[in-house]
Order: sequence, then structure tokens, then C-alpha cells
Amino acid sequence: MPYINIKITKDGATPEQKALLIKGATQLLVDVLGKNPKTAVVVIDEVETDNWGIGGQTVTSLRKNK
Amino acid sequence: MPYINIKITKDGATPEQKALLIKGATQLLVDVLGKNPKTAVVVIDEVETDNWGIGGQTVTSLRKNK
Amino acid sequence: MPYINIKITKDGATPEQKALLIKGATQLLVDVLGKNPKTAVVVIDEVETDNWGIGGQTVTSLRKNK
Amino acid sequence: MPYINIKITKDGATPEQKALLIKGATQLLVDVLGKNPKTAVVVIDEVETDNWGIGGQTVTSLRKNK
Amino acid sequence: MPYINIKITKDGATPEQKALLIKGATQLLVDVLGKNPKTAVVVIDEVETDNWGIGGQTVTSLRKNK
Amino acid sequence: MPYINIKITKDGATPEQKALLIKGATQLLVDVLGKNPKTAVVVIDEVETDNWGIGGQTVTSLRKNK
Repeated sequence: MPYINIKITKDGATPEQKALLIKGATQLLVDVLGKNPKTAVVVIDEVETDNWGIGGQTVTSLRKNK
Repeated sequence: MPYINIKITKDGATPEQKALLIKGATQLLVDVLGKNPKTAVVVIDEVETDNWGIGGQTVTSLRKNK
Repeated sequence: MPYINIKITKDGATPEQKALLIKGATQLLVDVLGKNPKTAVVVIDEVETDNWGIGGQTVTSLRKNK
Repeated sequence: MPYINIKITKDGATPEQKALLIKGATQLLVDVLGKNPKTAVVVIDEVETDNWGIGGQTVTSLRKNK
Repeated sequence: MPYINIKITKDGATPEQKALLIKGATQLLVDVLGKNPKTAVVVIDEVETDNWGIGGQTVTSLRKNK
Repeated sequence: MPYINIKITKDGATPEQKALLIKGATQLLVDVLGKNPKTAVVVIDEVETDNWGIGGQTVTSLRKNK
């Protein structure tokens, strides 16, 4: 019955990669807690780098200054 | 004062349907808990089927295999 | 496949009221969008009034000043 | 280590404004709780006015009726 | 930079199991997307079975009827 | 109309500190985006250090190893 929300910056994750995230996150809940995978829900949010901040700066800005 | 977040797959819900979800969810909180509807906030997120998983598979994949 | 998160202040909602919220929110998604209720997930969060703000004030403070 | 999620209606917030939100929210956690800003994460979600409801009505509809 | 939120019913997950969820979820993002684990944040929410619904019923009720 | 969710580890934030977070977050949205503070909602979640991970480790574990 778990619900997992994964937020990542929008950087071109492919449908195959997203499918792997969903499969892996579901399996993790089965392996660690013995959860029933049938009702496990995973939602992936892809967030623009302008909309994601870490350390008080946007990811857009952090990448420019690298 | 309630806050309700509804996540659905992006399947062409119309503005009218979204308005009904917002109206209905707000009314539910009024009916069941006597909440003040004025400050009830509802946010609907529409999620691509590649980004939604259930039972370890993406909805995209589940629909193909139907 | 919808996921619904309902946040309310912790004010003694009974198990029966929570069951009605879960039933009602699920039915709303069935009625408005024709969603399959079997995989509809509803999660209710109850939040202390010290931890909920509206208009820049905590609910604790708003209730005192009423 | 705080995580802050800011949801606003999609109304043309500029990258500069988003950067100010991220900077300000991070600073707030430093000022009030002495949190380490380095691991503070801020995520901004911009939501269509059709998908945001208050008082049981969509923001789209509330703005029309003003 | 990913953020992962895992919601599970409150069923006595141990600190060791939670540590495994956090480690596993972080590793998943590294393996699939090459994300930097240092800034990966995982938050686990444990939800009372009265507050979790699936198929329109609370988990409390579903377990009783098994 | 903004909604802000602040997640922090449960470390004894006082009601006064929470009130300052709520006031400050609301004011930030007014200052940067000219939002109406009246309908701004802020919800603070306090999360056990066992349930919060960064860099693949729980905060509980990170603090022990300091």
C-alpha cells in the first residue's frame, strides 16, 4: 500500500529510466518491508531547474557557476 | 482550512471536470467535518502516464498490455 | 489510479469521519472522471494547529483571537 | 536539512522571482531555526488556474467573476 | 538533488528498516539517473491505518474484513 | 493563494518559532510575488530523525557519527 513520490530536476530522463525508477522503488518496499507491490503507487515529478533550489540558489544558477 | 491535493494521470480532464472535483472535494470536507469552505484549497496535479507507476509498472506500459 | 491527500487540522476527527472522507473522495473520482476505485489511494494528514498557518498566523493564534 | 515546497498559480513568475523565493525561504529557515542552508531544498510548483480551487471554485472562475 | 517521499502505513517499521529504505532509495537514483547522492533527501511518513484508504475503504477496515 | 509546506526534523521547534516560519513564509510570497496573504496557507511537518535521510543515511545516524 505504499506511496512513493520522486522529485527530480527535468533533465531528459527517458521513459525507460522512469520505468526503472518505478520498478526499483516498488521492489525496495517489497524487499525491506514486505509490502504488497500490487497497490504500490509511484509518482515521478520532473521539476524545472529554475524551480529547484539548494543552498539558497536555483539549480540553474548553480550549474552556470560550476 | 483543509488542503486537498488530487493527483490523476493526464488524460484530458476538462476544465469542467476539474471544477467539479474542486467543488466536490470542498463540499466533502464541509459535509463530513463541518469545515469552512472559504479557506479550503484544492490543487489538482496531472501526471504523465510515463511518470505514474502501479504494481511496479508505468501506467503507459500497463495500458499497452491490456 | 488517483491519489488524494487531505490535510486537516488535528481536531478530533473520528475513525468514522475519516472513513467517510476516504469513501467520499474515492467516489468523487469515480463520478467525475470514471476512475477505477480499486486503485484509488487516499491519505489523510492531521496537522497540529501550531503547525498550520493561514493569512500569516497560526490556527492556534487565530482561534484565540476569535 | 529542511525541505520547502511552494505551490503558486502559474502567473508568469520570472526566474528572478523564483530565485528570490528560493533564497528567501532558505534564509527564513536559517534565521528562525538556525538550519544549515547548504542542504536546504526548495521546490516551486506552478499550477494552472484551472487546477487550483479555493472556496470550492477554480481560480480561473474566481478571476472571471471579479 | 532528488527528493523522495515514502508514505507507508504505521506498522512498526524499525529504525533499521527505515535506514534501508533511505539507503536503497538514494542508491536507486544514483544507479538509474546518475544523481549525486550527497544532496539526495528522503522523507518517510508513517500514516495511521485509519488515515489511509484504498478502494474507498480504510486500511483498518480492510484488515478487519480479511 | 499560495500553499507552502515546510518539512523540518523534529528538534523541538517552539510554537513561537513555528509562528515566525508561518509569518515569514507568507510575507515572502507577498514581497516577491505580490500574493494576497489572506489565503496563503502554510503547513509545517516535523519529521523524526529516523525518518529523514540525506546522502543515503538517516539524520539519526549522521548526528551520531559527527
